[in-house]
Amino acid sequence: MTSTDTAETRASALHERDHTCRALGIRLDGATPGHAQVRMTVADTMDNGLGTTHGGYLFLLADAAFSFAANTYAPVAVAQAAHVTFLAPVAAGDELVATATERARRGLTGVYDVTVTRDGEPVAEFRGHSVLLPGRTR
Amino acid sequence: MTSTDTAETRASALHERDHTCRALGIRLDGATPGHAQVRMTVADTMDNGLGTTHGGYLFLLADAAFSFAANTYAPVAVAQAAHVTFLAPVAAGDELVATATERARRGLTGVYDVTVTRDGEPVAEFRGHSVLLPGRTR
Amino acid sequence: MTSTDTAETRASALHERDHTCRALGIRLDGATPGHAQVRMTVADTMDNGLGTTHGGYLFLLADAAFSFAANTYAPVAVAQAAHVTFLAPVAAGDELVATATERARRGLTGVYDVTVTRDGEPVAEFRGHSVLLPGRTR
Amino acid sequence: MTSTDTAETRASALHERDHTCRALGIRLDGATPGHAQVRMTVADTMDNGLGTTHGGYLFLLADAAFSFAANTYAPVAVAQAAHVTFLAPVAAGDELVATATERARRGLTGVYDVTVTRDGEPVAEFRGHSVLLPGRTR
Repeated sequence: MTSTDTAETRASALHERDHTCRALGIRLDGATPGHAQVRMTVADTMDNGLGTTHGGYLFLLADAAFSFAANTYAPVAVAQAAHVTFLAPVAAGDELVATATERARRGLTGVYDVTVTRDGEPVAEFRGHSVLLPGRTR
Repeated sequence: MTSTDTAETRASALHERDHTCRALGIRLDGATPGHAQVRMTVADTMDNGLGTTHGGYLFLLADAAFSFAANTYAPVAVAQAAHVTFLAPVAAGDELVATATERARRGLTGVYDVTVTRDGEPVAEFRGHSVLLPGRTR
Repeated sequence: MTSTDTAETRASALHERDHTCRALGIRLDGATPGHAQVRMTVADTMDNGLGTTHGGYLFLLADAAFSFAANTYAPVAVAQAAHVTFLAPVAAGDELVATATERARRGLTGVYDVTVTRDGEPVAEFRGHSVLLPGRTR
Repeated sequence: MTSTDTAETRASALHERDHTCRALGIRLDGATPGHAQVRMTVADTMDNGLGTTHGGYLFLLADAAFSFAANTYAPVAVAQAAHVTFLAPVAAGDELVATATERARRGLTGVYDVTVTRDGEPVAEFRGHSVLLPGRTR
């Protein structure tokens, strides 16, 4: 079993147990060590009072990609902090893709960048910091 | 009508039109100029694959408080960027309260701090940056 | 020796070895466990090309307060990430005070908030994340 | 005169008036619309009390690249907020290069990413948010 097989297996297992992904229709496109991609079609129950999609759902999608990427290895990694920049408004019906890339790992901490795109154009940029929970493998 | 009446009226109108708040059961406790408080009981459809609440929902709740606080005045304000720090894990059944406070307004931009608490203890700290959309009042 | 004595002693020792603080005239007002305060008078060599103080110096002052606060205990803590918001422009001759407060410590990581003020008014807000280096006490 | 000539001219003029760049030996490698690169050799007066370079100087260098990139067009842009992640420690004598790239511009606000490298390896990642000052061209 290669490390890519393991990465895909670990991310898939996490995705399958994820109630939020099931409830929101977040699919896992794939994962390799330190990387993951997810996608979601925006529902109209995700609108805010201004008629656009709530930024919280863009964050959530990016955060899911981040979590899958950070958990392509053992032990379990959890989010510690994140920064998000909203680049363009999003609306119900849009299909969003979030692609997470590992920027650094040092000791127990990791840094991941996630770009959320619609039709290939960035709508949000996310940077997440993870911390490992030593001794917990899943 | 005082500015507090107007703030409450504006935030309430925004909350009523907000499909996400309705779908997730996010209630608006109140709003005064530059401030707003919301609350939500965590559902088990908000779990991630690690058995805790998805951080995206903590962000979303904080972001909602931020948006209501930033829209206690005209014109309409939208989120431009935000930073969130996760302080403690959260689980289904927990009641979360998010309290937003304005830190600064200059020209078209504003800065808001939001603390998310459970039983009075902080579980997340959020800092959001807003930008006004001149000419759009709602 | 109380924990406050130790905190003050640890922060002072770190401050004394700090070449940057000496070069820029950053003074340590005091430290208690998880807290520290520093101050600096802005020099005209800190100007940017727009005639105001370079934001990097506001960050640096806040980061110094953060580092002293995070090192009021052993083992050594280093900065991992930080977010800064600039609230008002600063000019040469201004005296700035940076006050750091611990928001959370969990495992090897910590969160600190720093407010930079001039005449009691905030000019910058900083949030720093630290990570401990186990086994290194100074 | 092309827009690249103008960008280079605007960034150079800003760099020449910048007292901090002169005091710290920060050189401007070049600028094109929305992009700029600067470099600096770390001095031993930039050390903190732990024997490494103060993170504030890494931030400052990234912030300088950000400011030059954001001011390759009129009107004047100022920093509103920034997030920095420290990836590796830096020491006196290291030569650092900071490269700023525009990620988005909308209305009065802009988003810039800056990577700080040493020998081609990233030591810090910076994301800055700017706001334009309408009516002020330099």
